[in-house]
Order: sequence, then structure tokens, then C-alpha cells
Amino acid sequence: MKARLDALRAEMARQGLDGFIVPHADEFQNEYLPPSAERLAWITGFTGSAGAAVILKDKAAAFTDGRYTIQIREQVDAGLFDIRHITDEPPKDWVAEHLGEGGRLGYDPWLHTERALETWRKAAEKAGGELVAVEHNPLDAVWTDRPSAPAAPIAAHGEEFAGESSAAKRERVAKALAEAGADSAVITAPDSIAWLLNIRGGDVAHTPLPLSFAILYATGRVEWFVDPAKVGADLAGHLGDDVTVRGADEFEGALWALGNNRVLADPAGTAALVFERLGKAGAQIIRADDPCQLPKARKNRVEIEGMRAAHRRDGAALTRFLAWLAAEAPKGGVGEIAAADKLEAFRFEGEHITDLSFRTISGSGPNGAIVHYTVTPDSDRTLGTGELYLVDSGGQYRDGTTDVTRTVAIGEPTAEMRDRFTRVLKGHIGIATVRFPDGTTGSHLDILARQALWQAGLDYDHGTGHGVGSYLGVHEGPQRISKIANSVALKPGMIVSNEPGYYKAGAYGIRIENLVCVTALEIEGAEKPMLGFETLTLAPIDLALVDPALLTSPETEWLNAYHARVREALIPLVDEATAAWLAGATRAVG
Amino acid sequence: MKARLDALRAEMARQGLDGFIVPHADEFQNEYLPPSAERLAWITGFTGSAGAAVILKDKAAAFTDGRYTIQIREQVDAGLFDIRHITDEPPKDWVAEHLGEGGRLGYDPWLHTERALETWRKAAEKAGGELVAVEHNPLDAVWTDRPSAPAAPIAAHGEEFAGESSAAKRERVAKALAEAGADSAVITAPDSIAWLLNIRGGDVAHTPLPLSFAILYATGRVEWFVDPAKVGADLAGHLGDDVTVRGADEFEGALWALGNNRVLADPAGTAALVFERLGKAGAQIIRADDPCQLPKARKNRVEIEGMRAAHRRDGAALTRFLAWLAAEAPKGGVGEIAAADKLEAFRFEGEHITDLSFRTISGSGPNGAIVHYTVTPDSDRTLGTGELYLVDSGGQYRDGTTDVTRTVAIGEPTAEMRDRFTRVLKGHIGIATVRFPDGTTGSHLDILARQALWQAGLDYDHGTGHGVGSYLGVHEGPQRISKIANSVALKPGMIVSNEPGYYKAGAYGIRIENLVCVTALEIEGAEKPMLGFETLTLAPIDLALVDPALLTSPETEWLNAYHARVREALIPLVDEATAAWLAGATRAVG
Repeated sequence: MKARLDALRAEMARQGLDGFIVPHADEFQNEYLPPSAERLAWITGFTGSAGAAVILKDKAAAFTDGRYTIQIREQVDAGLFDIRHITDEPPKDWVAEHLGEGGRLGYDPWLHTERALETWRKAAEKAGGELVAVEHNPLDAVWTDRPSAPAAPIAAHGEEFAGESSAAKRERVAKALAEAGADSAVITAPDSIAWLLNIRGGDVAHTPLPLSFAILYATGRVEWFVDPAKVGADLAGHLGDDVTVRGADEFEGALWALGNNRVLADPAGTAALVFERLGKAGAQIIRADDPCQLPKARKNRVEIEGMRAAHRRDGAALTRFLAWLAAEAPKGGVGEIAAADKLEAFRFEGEHITDLSFRTISGSGPNGAIVHYTVTPDSDRTLGTGELYLVDSGGQYRDGTTDVTRTVAIGEPTAEMRDRFTRVLKGHIGIATVRFPDGTTGSHLDILARQALWQAGLDYDHGTGHGVGSYLGVHEGPQRISKIANSVALKPGMIVSNEPGYYKAGAYGIRIENLVCVTALEIEGAEKPMLGFETLTLAPIDLALVDPALLTSPETEWLNAYHARVREALIPLVDEATAAWLAGATRAVG
Repeated sequence: MKARLDALRAEMARQGLDGFIVPHADEFQNEYLPPSAERLAWITGFTGSAGAAVILKDKAAAFTDGRYTIQIREQVDAGLFDIRHITDEPPKDWVAEHLGEGGRLGYDPWLHTERALETWRKAAEKAGGELVAVEHNPLDAVWTDRPSAPAAPIAAHGEEFAGESSAAKRERVAKALAEAGADSAVITAPDSIAWLLNIRGGDVAHTPLPLSFAILYATGRVEWFVDPAKVGADLAGHLGDDVTVRGADEFEGALWALGNNRVLADPAGTAALVFERLGKAGAQIIRADDPCQLPKARKNRVEIEGMRAAHRRDGAALTRFLAWLAAEAPKGGVGEIAAADKLEAFRFEGEHITDLSFRTISGSGPNGAIVHYTVTPDSDRTLGTGELYLVDSGGQYRDGTTDVTRTVAIGEPTAEMRDRFTRVLKGHIGIATVRFPDGTTGSHLDILARQALWQAGLDYDHGTGHGVGSYLGVHEGPQRISKIANSVALKPGMIVSNEPGYYKAGAYGIRIENLVCVTALEIEGAEKPMLGFETLTLAPIDLALVDPALLTSPETEWLNAYHARVREALIPLVDEATAAWLAGATRAVG
């Protein structure tokens, strides 16, 4: 890393920069990066899915959030980088403190949204310096062994899974564009394009995304900018005449041609470069949310039915794994990698699966306390008796994406573990059972997942729920359940995770995660339209970790009813031995 | 009202305006207006504490929030004004729709904050028109019988109540100014000035506020702009040499003299005129929160002890009233006005009281459903058997401000009333018992007050809690408990109300309101600094309205413990008959 930093600093000096920002981002502003865009990992060693680094002449800092605080300390050389919590000790403060009077802080305008730049700019100015767009990314200039850009084939996502034709979606979004007074919209979010065109690809790991750019016109026409090597001949018929395929390298030029347009672009989701080019071209820019994100988030009937079906298969696979684990782990000798592999094998026996939805988090004992733990041969450890084992995993099925976490006791858990687990479960039930008026956002609900922990002075340092796509990103927006203020109201058809946790560093981790779907409720005597959640995930919750004395009776009723549903749905799908185990694992308590 | 509208429209035409905005505001941006600033009431007839009107050439609209939706319809002529909900149907949409291309929408820059103008400006521009500052308020020009400005004497607020000298406060805030890089701050919020100078006045009803302006310098010096008629000779000694008293009419000129200053001013709390004048003077404006608001909100030990003492006296008065009511109301013949008068009389027997803290809301039956009901001889009704009676009231004591609501059943309540009351009580207990980590805001907590209602499809259309001053405003910022996103973390010493409710239009209203004080908690095993609430208000909650079957056991425990506290604190302070009644009213349930 020292050599890489030296090379980058030499290139920065050549370009007249005093600093350079390395975000965890690519030109698509996508959470999931191909290896060719893993600049942050290359320069810092940190491989988490969120973070940033700032390299100054004689100082550098690496930032990430609470999910990765342990991992970043293990991966990043603290002699080379100050290591900081990205929200508690934000990069802007570090820049304001260290950049220095007159300092030129460089950024690559392909790798930042316009919105994100505002913060960096203020920080640079606070230090008395300035923020400078680079023409050529200095890190790329010195990254000699950089992998080439991905070029996975792109296939149609059939209407039997999508539930709505691309033509109908394009018409719907085009109408919204016209209503917003826009002639066109620049769309760079890979999941928006995949949703809009009903296509899926494989340019990033675990998420069936093609990387490309698109311009949607208020007429319903689309210009799609994509590496032609990725587009199979059979796709033309699927796309139809209203979609023109152009080379990805033509995108920047096409922005110039929008000079006489009123162009909608998302300042929080599109590269700053797009705004700069549109501005120079003389386009009238309408800054607004990506018009595909909200319709994509609200799953239609076919997608919801697909999610339910995928969750039955996924639940059966996870239950077979849990039954196997219950038999094998207490004997000793089951390792974290072996467990993850076993679970993956069960999943791949199911229909419609194409990939895991992310790399399985398989953490025993203290490794469970690392929120986004990635097991490696070095870190692999045997599931020990008296320990907790946390497994967070999911599948990409053509009819739906899954994401589920279970925490199980190997042998006898301690009273503290049961207390903590039960508090996490109370939070999980709080979200699962809430009813709320239309207009409520995930930030209003977040506390329900935390309050039982808060009563004991405990908490968890991550959000409570993220959106989930339909055979798309396992994380998607715009809705979420989080302490952070969020103005997006939860609407029927949105899918979010419900995943409170508790982590005791060096000891154990607990998380209980189900996916839930927002549903309209009929409540007798209700005075306003009310919504609630349908739990999609089907898998037993380890009763050995539940202290029934801590549950209220409505909470106990929820747990027993959920387990009855799991039992009835999954017993027909599993072998006899698993069924017998499941019957016991889902017995009524309280 | 027709004649007044005609006169205003003629004056608007004379000034070349197509529209004029009439906010509920004065030049101090204070919630509590003197009669001379009640422009909204004069032009619309609406006397609520929040709202606005827009007068166009041939159309007009009046806006208010959910607390006043019934009242505004009763007071405002729907033939003259469109009547709108201020958040669901915001004024900006109405303006955008009706102002018309090229329309000039006037505003008085003394009566709007800079922040509030942004919304009006966008609305005017959306309509293709423009927002225009008026030199002379056209409404004032035609308001011939306008009352004169108030001139109540100003007195020192002794350190035995304030707990900190004005000099120490000035030094503290001046230090914060210097840290923010400011040479001075323009302070126009009456409660900020009252707090900073340890003074109290009487320019508005029910809140001991003097109306004035101040400039605080980073040296700790203050220039105080105030009608000299209000400043008694004895105040000079209290204020000391660092406070220079100048005429209120010198304020605008003094802004010009700040041209070479870096001046802090609050864009959300200070009149737009101040920013305009400072800008023209060449001052470097630092837009930031009013630097007095946060320190004022965090009460010191003396103020908290004063609040506790005031609440004991206030609770004794309210309890005497409730005991009297329990004896008298079932006989019939107790009216809403008579009840309010009786309660006021009991309050005024207590020590240190100077005023009520707002006009008592005394509503029986359907009047209770009017959230901010003001009883008049016309609306006065007898408390009927089988009805609910809601009384929301408070006192201004020199050692603290109180605000309490109780809802009582006259005779036998219905099962529905008990169900609704118990759900409101569950929400109240949810707030009273929550523990939360430092950094939590009131918007995170709000749902705890609503969720039991939401389970039944019910809600209430007002916030859950507002800040309360120490012998100051019964509403104060910056903290609050509300669905609306709020970035102000709750900190020890802040006081907020806890007042969920439920209102069935035309039938009954329910609200249970106590004041609570944020307190640091010691929790064994806590992993982060935790806070909670100490309930200050002491008065029985009507057990006839509680359905114990709906309460969880921790909720029942809270209710019984609270009642035990009320009993122990108040029995020594009340007469024997009241004590006997109180013993029964606070009996343990469940």
C-alpha cells in the first residue's frame, strides 16, 4: 500500500493536486462495483461496500460506517491512514482540518454525485482550499494492473417475472417526465435501466445488473448506451423499435446533443460529470429524483407473488441447512466456510436460482460481531459449543431476491445471550406488527426496532431495513427504515428488510432478518388508509435463544403464529428428517 | 370582512400588487402576538395561533393546521376565502395555481423569515409571477382602528429563578459567537432576549415577554433596542454596564452600522428585512441558529427545581378542581366557562403565579374535539352526563411554566371512549418510559405516542410534544416531539410536553398531557450514554376511562407508580376532602 500511495502522490503532484478523494463508487453511482472500479480497495486495502478515502500529500484517511468498523481496522494500515467513522467523524471535518490554506483537493467528476460534491466543496473551502475536477483520474493513471471492465451478456427478463412490459413501463415513466416538464431524462442507475428495459446482466457480483447509460425521452423512446459485446442478437426483438442501442462511448457526446432539451437528472444519483456536460451544452436541467426508482420500488402483483414463491424455496433451503447444523455443529468440526458452502448447496437445489444475492456472512462467536463479516481461510473458525452462530445470506432467483439472517445457539447459550436475543426479537416483532397511516416513512418506524435494546442501554450501529429488488439489488432505494431522516413514504408493494441486531465486540453477534412487503390493511373502524407489513421470509427463529418471560402476550402470539406459518409452508417442501426437526423448532412457546 | 377585503384590495391596486400575503406573525417572528399585530384575525376573522392568508385581486385563501380545522370553518366566511389545511394543501400550491402569469405577490419583509420566503418565492415563480417586498404594509394602511403597540413594564427575572446571571449567559453565548467566527449576532426572538438579559415583561397575553431587539457582540456587550417607556429606572442596575439601552426605532439604523461586521442571524427566526438591510450594509452574514435558543432550552438545576416546585403547586390546584368537578358536574349545571373560572381561581391561590400560561381550553362533549377550542358565551355548554370533558390549562409561575391536559368522564363513559382513552394513555406511557441514546431527536420518538392508536386505524393531527420555557413561552423551540423531521437532539434539561390525543369530530376529544424533563440515566451495563424523561406534571388520570385489559403489565406498573407519586406529593398540599377524593382517584389498578 505504501508503494501505491507513493505512486498516487507522485501523480497528484504532477497534476498540481494537494489532495485526492477516492470514493467507493463508479460512474454509475452503483453500490455494487466491478473489480475494475474497486479503487478504494486498491489504495487502502479496505474491501467493504461503503466508504471513502482522502489522500493528501503527507496524510491520508479512510472512512467507513458502523457495519465495518472492525473490518477496516483489520484491513487498513493505521500507519498510512487515519481510520474514521464516516458519520461520527465525517470526512468533511478531516478535510477542513488537514487540507490547508490554498489546498487543491481533486475529485473525478465521474465518481461523485452532484449532491455529494456539495459537502466536499464546503469542507475544502472551510480549510481555505478549493475542490478541483480532474480531467484524468490520477489513481487510474498509476493502477497498472487494473482489471478490465466487465462485459457479461445481457438477457431479457421475461414478463412472467417482471409482471409489466418494458413498453408499458417506458410509457408510464415518460408520462411522468412530461408532467414534470421534462423532454428527457438521463438515467445512469443500473437498476433503473434494468427495471425499465426488463433486462438483466452480470457485470457485478451477486446482482444481475448490466452497466450502461440511458436517455429516456418524454415520447417513450430510449437511447441505450452499452458495450455492444454485451448485447446478444436476440435482445433486439425484446427491446423493440423504440429502444436504440448505441455504444457506451457515445454517451458523453450524446449529452452535448441535449442542449436544447429540458433534461431531468438526479443530483443524488447521477455523476457530477453529467450535470457539468449538460450545463455546458446549454440544457435546462431539472434536478429531480430518478423517475424509475419509485415505480421500481413498488412491486406489482406478479413480482410480489414471485417474491413469495422465491421465499418458500429459499426458506426450505435455509431450514434444511438449520436442521443439518443442529445435528452437526454440536459434534464440533463445522467451520464457517463449510457451513456457508453447505447452505449455498441447498439453495442451488432450488428452482430459478442464478446466484447468491451477496456473499454469505457466516460468523461464529466473535466473528458474528463483525456486522459485515466475510469469512476467509485465515479467519475461518469452528462453530464452538456455547457460542452463537450468525448467518446472513440470500439468493438471486429469477422470480425474486432473498435476504435472511438467523442467529443460532450452538449448545447452551448464556442468560445474557438470551436476554439480548429476545430484545432483538422484540424489535423485530415491533416492525413486523406495526400498522401505520399512509404517508409514514421508515424513519418514523425505526425506533420500534430499537426500543427494547435502548431500555437496557444497548443499540446497534446500522439501519433497521433496506429496500430489496425483484431479481435485482439486494439493497435498493428509495425507501428504508433508519434513524436517518428520509422523506420517502412507505407504499404498498415496497419491500424492505426488518433486521435489528446486537453486537458484543469480541464475543458474539445477533441479527434477526426477514424481508417484509408493505400492504394495505383493512381495519374495521379505521379513520384513514392504513398500511402494514406482510412478512415474506420463512424460516424458524431459534427458540433456545428466546426468553418468553421478556415477551408481552401479543409478541408471543406473533412468534407462535409466525412459526405455525413457517411450519405449514415448509414441511411439504423438505425431507422427512428436516420436517421432524422443523416441527420441534417451531413449537408454540409462552 | 368584505369591506376590509375591499379596502385592502384597493390599497394593493394602488401599490401595484396582484396579491398580498398576511402571515400570523409580527416583526419578532414570535408565536404570541400583541393585538396590534393580529393582522390575520383582522382580515379573515380567524383567531387561531397559526395560519396565513393570501389575498389576490379576485380570490383569497386562509390556511391553518389540524388543530384549528374546525375553528377556522366557524370563523372565516367561506364565500370570501378558500379554506385550506396548511400542510396537506400548502399555500404555495394555491399561489402557484391562482397568482397568474406576471402576478406581483407582495409581502412585508418585517413579517416573514428569510427561510419562509423561499417557499413563497418558488410558488410565485411557478405561477410565472414574482414576489415583491412592500415598503409600507398595505393592510396596515387600511387598518384604521388598529390597537397601539403594547408597552408593558419590564422587570428583572431574579437569579433565584433564573439560576444563572445575565452576565454569565452573555459570556457563554458571546464565546459561541466567537467560535462561529462572528463579531456579532442580531437577536430578535423575544424569548431569547428575555433569557439572555434575565428580564420579563408583559407585551403579549399569557407569556411574560417584552418585545424588543438586541445585538450581542462577541465581546459580551449588548445593544438593546426597546421602547424606553417600558424600561423602569431600577432595571439599569440589573443590566449593568455591558448592556446599552437604545430606542426600538434605532434598531433598523443600527443594522447599517454593522457593515464591517461578520454578523450571525437566524434565517428561520429573524425577519427577512434584517438580512436585506445587513446585505445592503455590506455585512458578512453568517446564517445560523439563534445562539440563545439551545442554551435557553436546556434548563439549569435551579430552573428544573423551580419547575418541579411550580408543578406541585399547579398539580394541587388542578386536583382541587378535579375533586370539585367530580362532586359538582354529575349534578348538572357546570358550564365550560364556569369550570375554567373555577380552575383559574384555584391556581391563583398558589404562590408565585402571575398569569395563566395560555387561555384555558375547557371543552365538553363535541367541543372537546376542537383541538384548540376557545370557549365563548355563545359556545358555552353544560358538562353533560355520559360526556367527556377536556381541560388543557397552565400557569405562569415565576419559578416555572406549566401546561397540563386532563380528560374526565362525566358519569358513565362508553366502551369506545374507554378504548380510545386507553390507547391515548398507552401512547403517553410510551413517551414517559422510553430510554434513548444521546443524539436521539423528538421525531425518532413520536411514533411511540401514536402506535396504539394506529393499531386501530386512528391518529391525531397535531404534534406529540412542544418545548416549554421557564417562566417563558408555553411553546418554545428548538426541540419538539413530532412526525416532522427535526435535527435537534434531546438534551438533559430540555422540557417538552407529552400530549397524545384522539378527537372524534362532533362527539368528544381526549388528550393526556404532562410535561417531562430530559434526564441523563444511569443504566447498569449500558453501552452508551442514555437519556430518559422525568415527568414533572402531577395530577390524577381519570381511571374511569382506563381499560386495564388493554394495558401491558409495564404500562399498568407505570400508571400505578405515577399515581402513587401524585398522591404522596399532593395530599400534603390539599384540603381533607380533596385528599380523600385523590386517594380514590389514584388507587392502584390492574
